[in-house]
Amino acid sequence: MGGWAIAVHGGAGIDPNLPVERQEEAKQLLTRCLNLGISALRSHCPAIDVVELVVRELETDPLFNSGRGSALTEHGTVEMEASIMDGKGRRCGAVSGLTTVKNPISLARLVMDKSPHSYLAFSGAEAFARQQGVELVDNEYFITEENKGMLKQAKEAKSILFDYRIPLPSKETCAAAAAENVLQMNGLPISVYAPETVGCVVVDGKGNCAAATSTGGLMNKMTGRIGDSPIIGSGTYACDLCAVSCTGEGEAIIRATLARDVAAVMEYKGLGLQEAVNFVIKEKLDEGKAGLIAVSSNGEVACGFNCNGMFRGCASENGFMEVGLWE
Amino acid sequence: MGGWAIAVHGGAGIDPNLPVERQEEAKQLLTRCLNLGISALRSHCPAIDVVELVVRELETDPLFNSGRGSALTEHGTVEMEASIMDGKGRRCGAVSGLTTVKNPISLARLVMDKSPHSYLAFSGAEAFARQQGVELVDNEYFITEENKGMLKQAKEAKSILFDYRIPLPSKETCAAAAAENVLQMNGLPISVYAPETVGCVVVDGKGNCAAATSTGGLMNKMTGRIGDSPIIGSGTYACDLCAVSCTGEGEAIIRATLARDVAAVMEYKGLGLQEAVNFVIKEKLDEGKAGLIAVSSNGEVACGFNCNGMFRGCASENGFMEVGLWE
Repeated sequence: MGGWAIAVHGGAGIDPNLPVERQEEAKQLLTRCLNLGISALRSHCPAIDVVELVVRELETDPLFNSGRGSALTEHGTVEMEASIMDGKGRRCGAVSGLTTVKNPISLARLVMDKSPHSYLAFSGAEAFARQQGVELVDNEYFITEENKGMLKQAKEAKSILFDYRIPLPSKETCAAAAAENVLQMNGLPISVYAPETVGCVVVDGKGNCAAATSTGGLMNKMTGRIGDSPIIGSGTYACDLCAVSCTGEGEAIIRATLARDVAAVMEYKGLGLQEAVNFVIKEKLDEGKAGLIAVSSNGEVACGFNCNGMFRGCASENGFMEVGLWE
Repeated sequence: MGGWAIAVHGGAGIDPNLPVERQEEAKQLLTRCLNLGISALRSHCPAIDVVELVVRELETDPLFNSGRGSALTEHGTVEMEASIMDGKGRRCGAVSGLTTVKNPISLARLVMDKSPHSYLAFSGAEAFARQQGVELVDNEYFITEENKGMLKQAKEAKSILFDYRIPLPSKETCAAAAAENVLQMNGLPISVYAPETVGCVVVDGKGNCAAATSTGGLMNKMTGRIGDSPIIGSGTYACDLCAVSCTGEGEAIIRATLARDVAAVMEYKGLGLQEAVNFVIKEKLDEGKAGLIAVSSNGEVACGFNCNGMFRGCASENGFMEVGLWE
């Protein structure tokens, strides 16, 4: 038993021109969330409770793309999704298409604990939320002025906007980039990429692993679009060996069943945690698409990404703590 | 290169008392679908086209639980889901919550080919269907008299009904079974289990693999419930080694990332196709929960299940052909 470990992320793929103040705000939020998780772990909270607690905090803060501050659909609304998995018994819960649930991750937890199913979506998930008595807010609560501006830019550029936090140089530049097919998703042009999904992975002092991921998805996404975050095995996975939360281009993560593959190469090839992370990032993931955080049941913590930076923080019981954005 | 191979299924878990006429109808439908696929393969159709063609046929026939004949939600409506994956390039498309799309598998194919996303659900998926001009029908088209009767029984027994094709002995028996917790799903009592999801896996003469799965889900399911069928890596998976389609208790299949795990043990442990199928059914899947069909890129075909029977048919270029329900 190697003691507890925790990692959090606020999305993979960062614009190199992200203003320094914004970088500092992100680091402060990641540090606050890490400390929240560390306190809970020191108080002997189970891993599954810690990942829910930390992701709730990330959803409540508007900085990253989950809960308040979520990216907007093509219709200017917010449709959120999340999933949670307890490595112990591989229990899991997931939600998609939420429009009024203040903390999607907690509804995913309730799907796991209180429904006969593992995954509820759209109006059925909202009905379940009302039945469970979770906190509901108007869709307007999730929508920030900044995101409204970004959606407008995305629409002018006729693009699904990934890097929606960074004002585009101009609509001509973006349209030109799109026309040149510089970057593509699923064969269609996109702009620079940084979806800022949030996630947390934890191994507690008893060696139990858990993972949680929450997102608003892509700016200017089609309504009804489901990404990797609610998909067990893609955006989120936990078992008795490890826990993994991914972030990046959902379509590439789904193709790669990225979270499960980290666990699968540990289980079936016998790799260690960081080796497993390096292997799947290099061998299974399309270039420049995503990143992930992971912990193992023996207290290791690892992260990896093949895009330009990832908002993340890690800590373990032996005193290691790190918050970073770049390589 | 071992030539083409194909497998189809109409669901795992069969009531031992299924009337013989019904067993014969199922065998005839499976044989017709197998022959349809074989003809297409002999005409050099790519694997991805063959799986779509065969699953469309299964959706159109009301016998199994997909398209027409789909299980009903708690509100007496139909909400269908499907996914398709091309092993070549691991391209994929998925849909959930469809209420008017005559052939869900073909909309999943269009999500893969014509949208910037991999997975669309509920009203957004329906809007995409209208935009793509696929055939739409009233929700009533999918609802059969037999299924209305089964929903009534499920509601009287206050149970999510798995084996909805078989009249329950009596509502008292079912309620008693539920009270005794004889069978459980996700920790809650259920009745005997047989969801009759459909699927097809194919390797074509060029060694390309593809998989497709389509379902109406569970009788008396909560609206908004998503099962394993649309989840890439759980209900459906294809890569350059193999293609897999699963059927059974969605929640157990999701926990096991069952379809991906067949491919993962081939890829990472070096097992052959049937060995890989046997391994995941025995080691990764909860007892009595599900089954799957699979083909490998070198023309092998395999199936496996740990429940009471599976409707399935297999054929390969070397002349092997088999349609079966039981062990």
